[in-house]
Amino acid sequence: MPEINHRILLRSRPSGIPEPDNFVADSVPARAPATDEVLLETIFLSIDPAMRSWMREGSGYQPTVPLGSVMRGGGIARVLETRTDGYRRGDLVQARLGWQTHPTLPARYLQRIDLSRGDALAWIGPLGLSAVTAYFGMRDVGAVKPGYRVLVSGAAGGVGQIAAQIARIEACHVVGIAGGAEKCAFLSDELCLDGAINYKAEQDLVAAIGRVCPDGIDLYFDNVGGPTLDAALMHLRTGGRVVLCGRISQVATDPLYGIRNLGQILTRSGQMHGFQVFRYHDRYEEARAWLAVRHREGRLHQRLHILKGLDQAPGAIGMLFRGENNGKLIVQVSNPEPGAH
Amino acid sequence: MPEINHRILLRSRPSGIPEPDNFVADSVPARAPATDEVLLETIFLSIDPAMRSWMREGSGYQPTVPLGSVMRGGGIARVLETRTDGYRRGDLVQARLGWQTHPTLPARYLQRIDLSRGDALAWIGPLGLSAVTAYFGMRDVGAVKPGYRVLVSGAAGGVGQIAAQIARIEACHVVGIAGGAEKCAFLSDELCLDGAINYKAEQDLVAAIGRVCPDGIDLYFDNVGGPTLDAALMHLRTGGRVVLCGRISQVATDPLYGIRNLGQILTRSGQMHGFQVFRYHDRYEEARAWLAVRHREGRLHQRLHILKGLDQAPGAIGMLFRGENNGKLIVQVSNPEPGAH
Repeated sequence: MPEINHRILLRSRPSGIPEPDNFVADSVPARAPATDEVLLETIFLSIDPAMRSWMREGSGYQPTVPLGSVMRGGGIARVLETRTDGYRRGDLVQARLGWQTHPTLPARYLQRIDLSRGDALAWIGPLGLSAVTAYFGMRDVGAVKPGYRVLVSGAAGGVGQIAAQIARIEACHVVGIAGGAEKCAFLSDELCLDGAINYKAEQDLVAAIGRVCPDGIDLYFDNVGGPTLDAALMHLRTGGRVVLCGRISQVATDPLYGIRNLGQILTRSGQMHGFQVFRYHDRYEEARAWLAVRHREGRLHQRLHILKGLDQAPGAIGMLFRGENNGKLIVQVSNPEPGAH
Repeated sequence: MPEINHRILLRSRPSGIPEPDNFVADSVPARAPATDEVLLETIFLSIDPAMRSWMREGSGYQPTVPLGSVMRGGGIARVLETRTDGYRRGDLVQARLGWQTHPTLPARYLQRIDLSRGDALAWIGPLGLSAVTAYFGMRDVGAVKPGYRVLVSGAAGGVGQIAAQIARIEACHVVGIAGGAEKCAFLSDELCLDGAINYKAEQDLVAAIGRVCPDGIDLYFDNVGGPTLDAALMHLRTGGRVVLCGRISQVATDPLYGIRNLGQILTRSGQMHGFQVFRYHDRYEEARAWLAVRHREGRLHQRLHILKGLDQAPGAIGMLFRGENNGKLIVQVSNPEPGAH
C-alpha cells in the first residue's frame, strides 16, 4: 500500500510577515521512484528567514515559489525506496525536500549524511546550513582574529548562536544581543559569552552597547539590521568591520529604517561586507569538518526550537520575524529513529 | 623692514555651514626665524571639507582649532628667510601653513616641492592632497580593475575629478554625478567621462543612474553620502564595492539622512569601505610619482577654482557645502611667480 504524501502548498504571497493562511494543505499518494529516483520520508525541515523572500520576490538567486506548488524548504530525510545504486533503504540524506512528508526526488539532488560527523539532529543543527553560514561569515567575511571585541546581533538565533561560539573558540571577547531575558540568560549561562544585551529592555541601545563594550567593537556580526545596526556602528573601532549576514528586522517592514551612522564607517576607516552563503558552496565540506570537530569536543552547541508535525510549518516562518523562536527553528515531521513513528 | 603677517583667526564655532563671521582678520609683524626655522610667504591655500570638522569637533585624528588662533590650512609657500641649512630663499615648500600670509615655521614641518614633477599650481592641484586621496581611494581601497563600471559622486570636486580620471586611465567605464549642467559638461567634454548625471535636474536619481549605468556599478566612489549614496546602492552589481571617501551632503545637516538601501550590500555580496588618506602617509611619495607621470602625459587634469586674496578664505569653506565651487577650491594668497606681487 503506498504511503500518503502530506504536502503544504503556497496559496498566496505575504505582504508583511508570512501567516498560516498563505498556505494550504493537501494529501496525495506518494509517487513511486522512477529510475535514478528515491522515495524519502522527511524527518526535519529547517525554517529560515530567507523563506519569506522565496514566497515573495525571490532573492535574486532563487526563483519565487509558484502559487499552488509545494513550499520550498531544506531538511533531513530517510530513504524508503530507491531505484538507484547510490542509496539504500534507511540511509539519511539532506536535500531541498519541500514541505511534504514523502518527497520523491532524483538521487542527484540528495547529499548523503556522514554519521561519523554527527546524527540527524546535529546535521540540522550545528552542522546545518545556518552553522555553515556562521562559519563563513565569521571566519572568511569577518576575518575574525584572537582578541577581537566581537558583537553579534540575533545571537540566540540559528546563525547568531554559532557565530558567537565561533568567535569564542577564536579567543575573542564576545557580546550577544537578543530579545528577552531568557535568551540573554542562554547567551551568558549556556554559551558563556562575555556579555549579553536584551534590546527589548533598553531605551537607548547606543548607551547599552557602550556599557557592555566600553572599548568598542572590532567586528560586528549583524543578523538583524535596522536600529540595532545603527547603534552598533557608533561603537566601531578604527579599522573595524561589519558583517551583514541578515536583516530580519527589516525584511517585512515598510518603510525601511534609515541608517544614519554610516559616517562611522568613513571616520573609523571601517568596512562593511555583505555575503550570501551559497557563494561558498564548494567549501561547505571544509566548514562541516571544522564544525564537527568542535561539536564533538563539546565546544559548539546549537539550541534547537523544535515544532512537531508538518502542520506546524505554516505558522513557523512568522515566529522568526516576531522573535518567538528560542534557538534555530525546525519542524520535526517524523521520528528520527527509524520505525519509531 | 619686517613683513606684515596678515592672519585669519577662528572666532566662533559653526553650527551648520561655516560662514565668514566665524572668522576675524588681524595683522602682526612677521616673526623672524629662530634657529632651524624658516619665514615663508604663502602662495596657495587648499580649501577642503575636512576644515569644518577642524573648526568644530575635530575629526578624531585632528585636534579642534582653538578659538582665537590662526585657522588651520595646508598649502604652498615660498621661502623668504631661513636659519637652517636645508632651505634657501626662493625654495617652494608645502606645509600646514595656516591662514596667514607670512608664517614662520620649524623646517621639519616643511616638505620641499620637487619642481621636476610639476610647478606650484600642479602641487596644489593634480599632485596635491585631494589627488593623493583619490589615488589611494580608487586604487587601494576601491581596488579598481580594467572594465569596471565606475560611478563617482561629487565628480567635479577636488577629489572626485581625479578619482574619475584615474578610473578612466585604468580602462573603466566611468560615470560622474555633479550638481549643474556646467559641471556635467566639464565631466563629459573635458574629462571625457562616459556619462554625467546632473543630480539637481533629476526627480528620481535611482532611475537616472539606471539610464546611464544600465549594467549596474562595480565600484561606487562616494564623496557626498545621503540620498545619492542611497540611490547608487540600488545599482550595485554582485560583488560590487562602495568607497566612502566623503559625505559632504551630510556634514552640516541635521537630522542626518537615513540610508534605506543597505540591504543591497547584503543581497549583492557587496562591500563598503571607509578610509582616511592620512593612513597612507608613508606612501604619499608613491602616489605623487604615479600622478606626476600621468599629469605630464596630459592624461590627468585638475580644474582649480581659484579665489584671489587671503580675505576670500572665510567665505570659501561654505562654498564647498553649497556646491558653489567649480573644481578644486584654493585661495591664492600671493603670486606664484617670485617678485611679481
